[in-house]
Amino acid sequence: MIGYPNRKKADANAARPVDYSNRGMPLEDDINATNAYYLDIDRAAVYKKPIPIRIVSVQYRTRQTAKITEAYYQTPSTTDYNGVYRGRYLDFEAKETHSRSSMPMKIIHPHQLEHLRRVIRYGGIAFLIIRFVVLDETYYVPADSVLPEFDAGVKSLPHRWFTEHGRLIPYHYNIRVDYLSVIDEINMEDKHQ
Amino acid sequence: MIGYPNRKKADANAARPVDYSNRGMPLEDDINATNAYYLDIDRAAVYKKPIPIRIVSVQYRTRQTAKITEAYYQTPSTTDYNGVYRGRYLDFEAKETHSRSSMPMKIIHPHQLEHLRRVIRYGGIAFLIIRFVVLDETYYVPADSVLPEFDAGVKSLPHRWFTEHGRLIPYHYNIRVDYLSVIDEINMEDKHQ
Repeated sequence: MIGYPNRKKADANAARPVDYSNRGMPLEDDINATNAYYLDIDRAAVYKKPIPIRIVSVQYRTRQTAKITEAYYQTPSTTDYNGVYRGRYLDFEAKETHSRSSMPMKIIHPHQLEHLRRVIRYGGIAFLIIRFVVLDETYYVPADSVLPEFDAGVKSLPHRWFTEHGRLIPYHYNIRVDYLSVIDEINMEDKHQ
Repeated sequence: MIGYPNRKKADANAARPVDYSNRGMPLEDDINATNAYYLDIDRAAVYKKPIPIRIVSVQYRTRQTAKITEAYYQTPSTTDYNGVYRGRYLDFEAKETHSRSSMPMKIIHPHQLEHLRRVIRYGGIAFLIIRFVVLDETYYVPADSVLPEFDAGVKSLPHRWFTEHGRLIPYHYNIRVDYLSVIDEINMEDKHQ
């Protein structure tokens, strides 16, 4: 087992009373804060990819500064997050649903699911992080569980499907979406050195 | 050993005579073409990250289209390329130099080298791809060779350093910067199944 020492800064935060107001944060912010914390405690390097933008027009003012004056959002060809943890390649997409009862499959782009299929084939750890906002539950869903449903043309996955095929991701003040704890449990269990 | 079958399309290209005019392409284009080929032959998923852009102003015209009217380039916090190959996390930065005799260290941002240091610590494969444009030579340089030079405050690395610490990356018509062949040689040699 590797020990991940908390730094002073982290300890100071941990000593504060739990502030449930954080729970209202968008999933993306919670994941970014989690990734920043993982980096801070020297555990993993996982980043959100920038949104791809097609640049049409740029004004160059000085050598250092350039102002983009016309550009458009592009559809990402992969998922939003990837990185490295204990030598393994991690790749995931994160989505929120405001439904209590099910997740519409259309909130995940087909090309993102195809990308996750490739990641599995090349030996990476591929998953989704799905938050049921109203229920305040965030699930880790292995991509190899969701791909058969997608291939079968399923239009939505009921909440119960997540309790059966996913894992509830623990919430902590400093690690708001502690997905690495789930990965430790399900992917690394036979790989302790 | 895993076999990577070439598809018809790839075979057709391979049958053409070698076109050395490609050699004038910028390194980035060559690497993008190489990554597209690796994806096409189902060998690895490696992508260039989009350039991070700070968006200041957007005009929404219809629901689908939004025109960005003011935005600025940001400094990337990581390297340009990462991906997955045979279960391993790959991470690299690619740079060209027009010098015949040496590579100025300043062409690589310090924070990119620090990122590569982390990648090594977390068990990923971290490297640089350096092209000497005038010499038409492209080197694979393991990050753990260049980091001690950076830490020692070395301002430039002579060409001979690359012949000693790097590996010349083979050039093929379809795989213009075949860096995975180098990785197979130096990282995977004791991991064949």
